[in-house]
Amino acid sequence: MIVSKDNHPVSKSIYKQLLLDLPSLSGGTQFKLGKISLDIEGKDGLGGLIEEWFGEWAISHKFTVYNPKVEEGTSQEFPDYYVGKAKDGYLEIKTFDADASPNFDIANFESYCDSLANNPYRLFSDYLIFSYKLNGSALKINEIWLKKIWEITCASAAYPLKTQNKRSVIYNIRPASFHLVNTRAARFPMFSGPVKFVDALYTTQYQYNKKTADRNKFQQSLSAHGIDLNKL
Amino acid sequence: MIVSKDNHPVSKSIYKQLLLDLPSLSGGTQFKLGKISLDIEGKDGLGGLIEEWFGEWAISHKFTVYNPKVEEGTSQEFPDYYVGKAKDGYLEIKTFDADASPNFDIANFESYCDSLANNPYRLFSDYLIFSYKLNGSALKINEIWLKKIWEITCASAAYPLKTQNKRSVIYNIRPASFHLVNTRAARFPMFSGPVKFVDALYTTQYQYNKKTADRNKFQQSLSAHGIDLNKL
Repeated sequence: MIVSKDNHPVSKSIYKQLLLDLPSLSGGTQFKLGKISLDIEGKDGLGGLIEEWFGEWAISHKFTVYNPKVEEGTSQEFPDYYVGKAKDGYLEIKTFDADASPNFDIANFESYCDSLANNPYRLFSDYLIFSYKLNGSALKINEIWLKKIWEITCASAAYPLKTQNKRSVIYNIRPASFHLVNTRAARFPMFSGPVKFVDALYTTQYQYNKKTADRNKFQQSLSAHGIDLNKL
Repeated sequence: MIVSKDNHPVSKSIYKQLLLDLPSLSGGTQFKLGKISLDIEGKDGLGGLIEEWFGEWAISHKFTVYNPKVEEGTSQEFPDYYVGKAKDGYLEIKTFDADASPNFDIANFESYCDSLANNPYRLFSDYLIFSYKLNGSALKINEIWLKKIWEITCASAAYPLKTQNKRSVIYNIRPASFHLVNTRAARFPMFSGPVKFVDALYTTQYQYNKKTADRNKFQQSLSAHGIDLNKL
């Protein structure tokens, strides 16, 4: 697996091609049942549709991406795609309405703490993010970004890492307003690198439920794999 | 609002017509973006699509249903539809894969406790439930039910009301295997009526977080509206 602050070369090629295709990325969803055919105006399932579309788009452009849900028939949550011939990169697909702030779930908070401890390479996943506009049922991709997790996360007033909290329970890791150059992003800027992000992640876990086991396991796992985050 | 153990007359007419249409209820989802057009095989957004489809189907059959999200432009969670000219019935649309057990969220547990206390009529909502089969991208409605909440809920080993629990947190009210006539349903049968369901709901809330305020408010609200559950 790649260990780098930089995006995977295949992810970068994909991103380059997507930016070329961007002006043509219009369409929509049609749902048919019995005699009724509907142009869908709801946003509910759109993230899943764009994720499934991306796989077809990548294949049509001969990029080496692998969908574990299709290839292995599993219903695994992570990753959305492997990239590279050696499947040595993780690629996550995220989407949000361009008329609102990014509100997608980056990951379930506790699951992420746990899975990072077991697989430190997950920290180096690439995030391919699409913002869209839905005008009635007419869909248009508005902007596309290729990011690392520390480039789309930040602190919040509640915790060192911005999360979705309800009734004192932390549910998901939530994105910063990474798409804005300044304004709101100024108070809680994105993290400067993986070390700062990991620190915020496990400090949040400690403040939340006094758990330190995941952080310790993560540090051990980094050492075992010969990874030094400070040398990236 | 109607107060009855029986389903709303409009819901019953809708159900009757749906059963007539059932053999023809085949179709699927097509997603288009740029040059790529996809027949969707994922189930993620299917519930939302069937809910949106239902509104169109009902209008095409001249049933008096109102979608509050469309009519009032709100993004409210409840109800999915009002039924009846006086909008005196609530109709919720639920879906599940016929090859699995019902796994839809009936409602967020705490929100439901709270909202029932504020609006006891919610207890009398009708649930229109579709099971579907997805063969590749070919969708077919398999069965349809019209139910009350106490007819699709049951106890569980953990609590008097079956809920979705993760890391000791109760998330959602989850359905019984109401579609099975016997087998698994035998150990935890569905509730015999609204009184038993409400009792299980608030006993679960008490066991979970020692909260009794919602139950008290619900009882007061019933009295204020002159509703006697035992006389239904």
